[in-house]
Amino acid sequence: MELKVYADRMSQPSRAILIFCKANGLEFEEVPIQLAKKQHHSPEFAEINPMKQVPAIVHGDFKLFESHAILIYLASAFPGVADHWYPADARKRAKIHSVLDWHHSNLRRGSVGYIFNNTIALAFGLPLNPKAEAEGEKLLLASLSTIESLWLEDGPFLLGNSKPSIADLSLVCEITQLEFADEKDRERILSPHKKVLKWMEDTKKASAPYFEEIHSSMPPGIAQLKALKAQVISQLSASKH
Amino acid sequence: MELKVYADRMSQPSRAILIFCKANGLEFEEVPIQLAKKQHHSPEFAEINPMKQVPAIVHGDFKLFESHAILIYLASAFPGVADHWYPADARKRAKIHSVLDWHHSNLRRGSVGYIFNNTIALAFGLPLNPKAEAEGEKLLLASLSTIESLWLEDGPFLLGNSKPSIADLSLVCEITQLEFADEKDRERILSPHKKVLKWMEDTKKASAPYFEEIHSSMPPGIAQLKALKAQVISQLSASKH
Repeated sequence: MELKVYADRMSQPSRAILIFCKANGLEFEEVPIQLAKKQHHSPEFAEINPMKQVPAIVHGDFKLFESHAILIYLASAFPGVADHWYPADARKRAKIHSVLDWHHSNLRRGSVGYIFNNTIALAFGLPLNPKAEAEGEKLLLASLSTIESLWLEDGPFLLGNSKPSIADLSLVCEITQLEFADEKDRERILSPHKKVLKWMEDTKKASAPYFEEIHSSMPPGIAQLKALKAQVISQLSASKH
Repeated sequence: MELKVYADRMSQPSRAILIFCKANGLEFEEVPIQLAKKQHHSPEFAEINPMKQVPAIVHGDFKLFESHAILIYLASAFPGVADHWYPADARKRAKIHSVLDWHHSNLRRGSVGYIFNNTIALAFGLPLNPKAEAEGEKLLLASLSTIESLWLEDGPFLLGNSKPSIADLSLVCEITQLEFADEKDRERILSPHKKVLKWMEDTKKASAPYFEEIHSSMPPGIAQLKALKAQVISQLSASKH
């Protein structure tokens, strides 16, 4: 198949791209790259993406990485993608770029800082870091407040749009990464942000059934990692006695 | 004037936008927002950019922030901007997006982490943080190596281009922020990266005389901040005796 998407469904930007492809009926082959098995460090994958990260795509002889760049490319290069995902109008497009740029240093940085140091580090054999987790949570909470008060001010989708763009998909998939946290922590972080919760539901519905389909791959990995975390905590606790 | 650019020439993304506007002959009004005087926290400026950061633009009734989004918008909305700055071709454009996205979490994060905690924090009445400075330097050095070995592999400009794009301007202006560091530190960080040094010179030449014109505003502020740093270090040293 001409378009290959190298992805791990446990990775939030991978999920955004897979959902985008399916919701827009793009023909593609999903090539699973399992991060927990270090498949992104193989020499073969380094030929696809020298940064050794997912997602990445190969379209014919064209290779690309960085999820926002990929979403924009797919929306531009494939005819038939509805305009609302990445509008042709320069000003509407600019506003989407603005959200996507903001995302890097705010929601994404906060979310990754929090959840990596809360749980995911264990999947890579690294210790949890409560200080980095707390710093991440602070930025995550500030970012959710900005989404609530600024980007969703005129809802239902980001920037007051009536239909989702690639920015909605990217940001919502970032937030679903909090599935790796304990229920009570996720509740504490998300429940004060009512518009964010509604927008997540709306984005899920607007890309049904693909949003749920892609996310349905997460629970086994999450359960495995939570079991590992429980084991690590129990060992730490035992070593203190 | 229809296009207003809110900028502080001590801010690296502000400089990139000012140079871009001048190099492309765009008519605009530069509205100075002095960060050291906290002018970005004024209620008037919050109306322009609710994030209270420079740069930001107003074009007629259209407001925009985030420097990459601004560069793309200016290159798209103003006729007469040469194609090499932001090519119309979807694949060339995608590669530029990829560099710009990479920049956020790599060169920019490393550079800001380093130089803010090395010097610039003092301008905002904050203490220097050697641990954060060291973490920033580590990411900065790794990012310079990636630019050297990957993005400049086929030089002279990023991605093997023969003329600069908005990505060259953004990344080179990030690196000139190291002017705030001591000469010996800058030398230590930059000198191993020969292609990076040549590329910086090439980018300066390709946007002459505007690159130097905009950067010529930096020395007085740098001198002031270095004097403040010397004073802080001397006080710290005295308090230890």
